[in-house]
Amino acid sequence: MTSIDLNADLGEGFGAWRLGDDEAMLDVVTSANLACGFHAGDPATLHRTCHAAAARGIRIGAQVGYRDLAGFGRRFIDIAADDLYADVVYQIGALDALARTVGSSVTYVKPHGALYNTIVHHEAQADAVARAVRDVNANFPVLTLPHSAFGDRARELGLRVVAEAFADRAYRGDGTLVPRGEPGAVLHDPAAVAARVPALSRTAESLCVHGDSPDAVTIAQAVRTALLADGIELAPFV
Amino acid sequence: MTSIDLNADLGEGFGAWRLGDDEAMLDVVTSANLACGFHAGDPATLHRTCHAAAARGIRIGAQVGYRDLAGFGRRFIDIAADDLYADVVYQIGALDALARTVGSSVTYVKPHGALYNTIVHHEAQADAVARAVRDVNANFPVLTLPHSAFGDRARELGLRVVAEAFADRAYRGDGTLVPRGEPGAVLHDPAAVAARVPALSRTAESLCVHGDSPDAVTIAQAVRTALLADGIELAPFV
Amino acid sequence: MTSIDLNADLGEGFGAWRLGDDEAMLDVVTSANLACGFHAGDPATLHRTCHAAAARGIRIGAQVGYRDLAGFGRRFIDIAADDLYADVVYQIGALDALARTVGSSVTYVKPHGALYNTIVHHEAQADAVARAVRDVNANFPVLTLPHSAFGDRARELGLRVVAEAFADRAYRGDGTLVPRGEPGAVLHDPAAVAARVPALSRTAESLCVHGDSPDAVTIAQAVRTALLADGIELAPFV
Amino acid sequence: MTSIDLNADLGEGFGAWRLGDDEAMLDVVTSANLACGFHAGDPATLHRTCHAAAARGIRIGAQVGYRDLAGFGRRFIDIAADDLYADVVYQIGALDALARTVGSSVTYVKPHGALYNTIVHHEAQADAVARAVRDVNANFPVLTLPHSAFGDRARELGLRVVAEAFADRAYRGDGTLVPRGEPGAVLHDPAAVAARVPALSRTAESLCVHGDSPDAVTIAQAVRTALLADGIELAPFV
Repeated sequence: MTSIDLNADLGEGFGAWRLGDDEAMLDVVTSANLACGFHAGDPATLHRTCHAAAARGIRIGAQVGYRDLAGFGRRFIDIAADDLYADVVYQIGALDALARTVGSSVTYVKPHGALYNTIVHHEAQADAVARAVRDVNANFPVLTLPHSAFGDRARELGLRVVAEAFADRAYRGDGTLVPRGEPGAVLHDPAAVAARVPALSRTAESLCVHGDSPDAVTIAQAVRTALLADGIELAPFV
Repeated sequence: MTSIDLNADLGEGFGAWRLGDDEAMLDVVTSANLACGFHAGDPATLHRTCHAAAARGIRIGAQVGYRDLAGFGRRFIDIAADDLYADVVYQIGALDALARTVGSSVTYVKPHGALYNTIVHHEAQADAVARAVRDVNANFPVLTLPHSAFGDRARELGLRVVAEAFADRAYRGDGTLVPRGEPGAVLHDPAAVAARVPALSRTAESLCVHGDSPDAVTIAQAVRTALLADGIELAPFV
Repeated sequence: MTSIDLNADLGEGFGAWRLGDDEAMLDVVTSANLACGFHAGDPATLHRTCHAAAARGIRIGAQVGYRDLAGFGRRFIDIAADDLYADVVYQIGALDALARTVGSSVTYVKPHGALYNTIVHHEAQADAVARAVRDVNANFPVLTLPHSAFGDRARELGLRVVAEAFADRAYRGDGTLVPRGEPGAVLHDPAAVAARVPALSRTAESLCVHGDSPDAVTIAQAVRTALLADGIELAPFV
Repeated sequence: MTSIDLNADLGEGFGAWRLGDDEAMLDVVTSANLACGFHAGDPATLHRTCHAAAARGIRIGAQVGYRDLAGFGRRFIDIAADDLYADVVYQIGALDALARTVGSSVTYVKPHGALYNTIVHHEAQADAVARAVRDVNANFPVLTLPHSAFGDRARELGLRVVAEAFADRAYRGDGTLVPRGEPGAVLHDPAAVAARVPALSRTAESLCVHGDSPDAVTIAQAVRTALLADGIELAPFV
């Protein structure tokens, strides 16, 4: 029986601000990419989300991003490689310490937002992120698109690279994502998302569903149902 | 032969801003309390300082503080215990990850500035910091004044408590520090500092010298010389 | 016919994070206290909220707070008077410039959260805020509790002081608010809120309703209805 | 007699961190570009610097930048035009309010760092900054390179554009600056800087000298002396 991982970005509130229903999403996914404080996620929010994930046995990944609360990490920053390297190490270590206080730990890394998209092609930033992950824990898999500079560099450094597909994001012809802000970038119809999921799931080891839209839980459940109906088991990749 | 530790607050720049001469101070002290990003210390600065400390075999401690870059962690914040707990775990984990990339690691914790002074008497915040340290690593000693709520709580939780004295700070009759901003709070005369050091050193396991004043290196060297002249060896407490 | 002002805290999102339904609240209140970026309110959010307020002819006030995004300005910070003075001037000027680009302007000042509560009794901080308002525009009224150090100092400096009452907050015997976090601090039953409003409205020139709870709009409309039913007109105080 | 303006970036400390000797620089320049809090400049620092500038009758300009304290505004951020527009309005208004409390006011705008360089060619960001300045005060001149998209757009919107040259920065063949970080980007020899100043001064209405290097005051004085020796008067452009 084939299996696939289902991941979502969680822990993306900050202080008084909430984003999405993390508890409900944790009942659907198999891996939780938790923000690390730079684009979202104050420590107390992360601690609570780590606790909720650990209570369900859900894997915790470090969703590292640019230092940009005002932009939610969705704006490219032309940061020097040495600075980015240190920022990534810092974020992984911070989240891992919180996860360990609840008996869990970080087990993989997924870059967030503009950083995710940038290192698909930006060699210097891709190298910085890959080296940072390797230096924190060479056993951490990284999540990226099937074809990316980051994936190539991570493989060269001996890291396991997990290809992912986005259940509810539109793709361009070259396999990159239609940028947020462009029309149709995010799919909102659960039926349409569910319909494409079986084919998508054959291109990747993990499927990403979003946790921050009003219909996030409904879509995630539709994806889960479609996968199971197609005979695909849900299981974490690590 | 008696021995004492000499500690200083380092890594307290942020981005383009520098504070003190960390390299010179690392040639004098035996323990380096590194900022963790909340009151000072961007990750790249901390990475460089960890590297410089590791290259000299100097112990690295996590100098955790309030989230307050504009106030340099020197302003009391009435933060809830759960939030403070998570902030402290986050900071220690972040610095430890950076230290590990250069072959070192965090080996102790020293609260910074207003947090340091607050938890001498503030039971709820003292408890939050002590629990955070214990939950990250129950083998981490903590630095505090000889008599403090934080020290008491840390001991109850099984942590080793290292009493420290301040070579260049004025004391009040009750053993607490004269607050910064009050006249005479910080001593600037190397001879005067050196003269009080032998007696002070008998009250503590570690002596703190400051790294952020113009005469910091001169004073630290005077303290070191005075200790050696008094037959006291310099050695880290951990 | 008696009249009273109805004010609410708006513009309190930050970047990707939203808080409350500002558009709906602007259809109910007569004065909008807009965040100024220190506890909430990125400039683009504030610009949009200024535009929405100006389009309805709703007065804009500067809701100045402590610099504390992670704590939403709800934590006391022991900031020096000179620093607080400059922080308040900075915030009012920033919001006023945004308001002017949409043909409106700041017309009054209301401190936020912990700063609001602190300067009811903290003389030095009360003086700093009052001087800041006076130095930006001596014609700006300030909102505070009927009895407060801030109100006293503002009056001494020649400012108009507008006493306000909180439609949905519980009071202690001394007229101060039950702190958030304590049981019963915020009332959530629209009928209960509406029932106390006529009496409350006789103690103040402005009534505050909250904009950030799930039932905020319902409660605000209930307050408005109760006032009108009691023969009290709604009109801005300035 | 020909005259030229001499400008420098000042007020670029943040909290406990200082950068350069603002008081000494204010005795040399005729215009002070003050940070506005996004790349540097906490309100209290800005208030002090406004006071020092006003006491000498030195013009105050708003040095607006990307929101990036960790990067000191020297990293390009791919910010949306609407967000940048609001960020610029916010910053100008904040500084202007501080300047007015000491009897001065903002009289011009100069973008900082990466924003300065970006809008030489980035049409959308150039437009956003130009509209922001125009909407705050259509009488504010803007400083930019002799040939820039920002200057072109500002002129179209009716703003006065003041061309500036950099006394201590190397130029590329196309008239843009050699980026910081490349070898030779910043000139440090006062004699070499002074030697090129008379020719440079004929290409611009204002000359920029830097305030943040160890030899900043020496270089600024050498520039001033060279200009006067060449028969060029020093006078603000506004």
